[in-house]
Amino acid sequence: MPTRARSSPLSLAPNFARRAGSEPGLPPVLFGSHIDSVPNGGNFDGDLGSLSAIEVVRTLNEAGVATRRPLEVVVWANEEGVAFNNGLDGSRAAAGQTGPGDLDMVWNGIKKSDALRKVGGDPARIAEARLQPGYFHCYLELHIEQGGTLDRAGTPIGVVEGIVAIDRYEAEIRGFANHAGTTPMPERRDALLASSYLTIAVNETVRREPGRQVGTVGQIAVTPNAPNVVPGRVVETIELRDLAAEKIARLAQEIETRARDIARQTQTEIAIRQIAHHDAALATPAVQASIEAAAAKLGLATRRLPSGAGHDAQMMALLGPMGMIFVPSVDGISHAPREFTRWDDCAQGADVLLQTVLSMA
Amino acid sequence: MPTRARSSPLSLAPNFARRAGSEPGLPPVLFGSHIDSVPNGGNFDGDLGSLSAIEVVRTLNEAGVATRRPLEVVVWANEEGVAFNNGLDGSRAAAGQTGPGDLDMVWNGIKKSDALRKVGGDPARIAEARLQPGYFHCYLELHIEQGGTLDRAGTPIGVVEGIVAIDRYEAEIRGFANHAGTTPMPERRDALLASSYLTIAVNETVRREPGRQVGTVGQIAVTPNAPNVVPGRVVETIELRDLAAEKIARLAQEIETRARDIARQTQTEIAIRQIAHHDAALATPAVQASIEAAAAKLGLATRRLPSGAGHDAQMMALLGPMGMIFVPSVDGISHAPREFTRWDDCAQGADVLLQTVLSMA
Repeated sequence: MPTRARSSPLSLAPNFARRAGSEPGLPPVLFGSHIDSVPNGGNFDGDLGSLSAIEVVRTLNEAGVATRRPLEVVVWANEEGVAFNNGLDGSRAAAGQTGPGDLDMVWNGIKKSDALRKVGGDPARIAEARLQPGYFHCYLELHIEQGGTLDRAGTPIGVVEGIVAIDRYEAEIRGFANHAGTTPMPERRDALLASSYLTIAVNETVRREPGRQVGTVGQIAVTPNAPNVVPGRVVETIELRDLAAEKIARLAQEIETRARDIARQTQTEIAIRQIAHHDAALATPAVQASIEAAAAKLGLATRRLPSGAGHDAQMMALLGPMGMIFVPSVDGISHAPREFTRWDDCAQGADVLLQTVLSMA
Repeated sequence: MPTRARSSPLSLAPNFARRAGSEPGLPPVLFGSHIDSVPNGGNFDGDLGSLSAIEVVRTLNEAGVATRRPLEVVVWANEEGVAFNNGLDGSRAAAGQTGPGDLDMVWNGIKKSDALRKVGGDPARIAEARLQPGYFHCYLELHIEQGGTLDRAGTPIGVVEGIVAIDRYEAEIRGFANHAGTTPMPERRDALLASSYLTIAVNETVRREPGRQVGTVGQIAVTPNAPNVVPGRVVETIELRDLAAEKIARLAQEIETRARDIARQTQTEIAIRQIAHHDAALATPAVQASIEAAAAKLGLATRRLPSGAGHDAQMMALLGPMGMIFVPSVDGISHAPREFTRWDDCAQGADVLLQTVLSMA
């Protein structure tokens, strides 16, 4: 049974491959993942879901199994978004969520439209990448968990309840840069000292109440950043995630209140502004049930859990029903060379994907 | 009365200029400062003392005043040490304190010996820059205070008691870099969170006891430094200064103890190693008295104070008697474009230098 590939304007490589169904007019079951990574990343994030999707079609071809609906495999581009600081690039274009100035963004001295050309894409045709709502019957994605919940519990299959909302803020702390030898301690307006209090405040605020919310200060820029100068300016990122957008909005307000106290105590000024917001994307209950039924058929235990990481599936949730299958990450390590999922767990995840595709198609 | 200039192997420019005395065999009175600066620095740090030294000789020439001892003006090179991360370069060579590998250091992709050639110096002749102990009768340097003590007190002339000892440390904090969305808060080993506690511990330790000691975390490097990754590694500098070397050694031990607790509480590893030590350099009591007498003769109030900043004078203190004259820095601002010393204060400082030179020569 032949598959037909078509390339996306995002790249010369074929991103979509279609296997015909017995009723060609029906919307396809779409499934896949991404193959890009992060610097110093691992080998399973994205690749597992992409290769498993191809393997599902190969298995059906070898067994000569026909489905009613067409099947469509997708390999998304630039999911991680290290380049141009914005992820889900391929699925974002497919969901019609690419912003107006998006192709003019500059990163590392190269414009995004030029970067697209460099990898064989055609920025002028970006709108053609868009899929219409209702294009697919449902979207499925197999992915490693990237956290340690399944690994600790010894549960082979995770059924994703949804992808968390993400709020990203930038805190700018203005003190006064001065000579580290000649400025007495009481007269300093040390922006890095204020930043240290703020980083601890973010951690304490997020941990003070029960729940699975997380908060991270991951990036910091200090000016002038010299051993013998009291730091005059710090910019740091604050990232908050939870399935409930209201909760992280409230936590951000508490952090803002703490920041005002810190600014007063350290004689600095702290301005916090929001730089990104991603809505939570809930998985479709019927698709979750379908994944659980597929796992049960294979004798595999499941556990429902949220995804703390963003995924292309959240863009597809804007277009139609969506579901995600998680498999355990050993020790919860991801975005690191030690990222690992046991081969048995990989195979079981691919089996659940196959059975879910069959039941949906 | 002619002056004779000679160049230093450190640069093509004449760094020393000599005005003969009536008893040519006597060691000269040496005085001057530096003219290099820091990025985004001010206009008075170094320049005031260099130009005033030249003005002293011009004034004596114009007035036809002869001195018993020869006078020697010096303009030092690379005092700030932004390039090659080590200051007092010219005076260090003159004091014979240049280390064996010093000319092989690489900074910004250029070897120090090549950088010397680039500005017209001759690295092969570096040893010729050395002055023998007893070369001068005494060394004098006029400089802006760079702190706010004189400005706040309204005192026009500072008499430097000595230049503080400086200990510089590097703290390396190792946590574990992991996904900011999927790593639950209790399982994080966040190196930036640990660094924040350490930065606050440095500040608290230094401020807990009375005295003029200062402690600064001025430079920090975070890996991988991305908004969506829990920081895995931080390197930060800790700099301690005081006239009493024992005091800052004891403070460093207290910080080390705090660091052990922080490492335990944040599940990180913290290693602190010393990367630089500069001895304190005390000004010669007789020279301090001579500066005070010169100021009194001019009707100017004086105040004794330590120098929190390093100066070429500390290298000259290794070779013979040394004294320094400070003038007020408005609002204690230095190493910044707003660095300013009122013109009257500049002129009064130069007058005190002139009178002190005359009394010593």
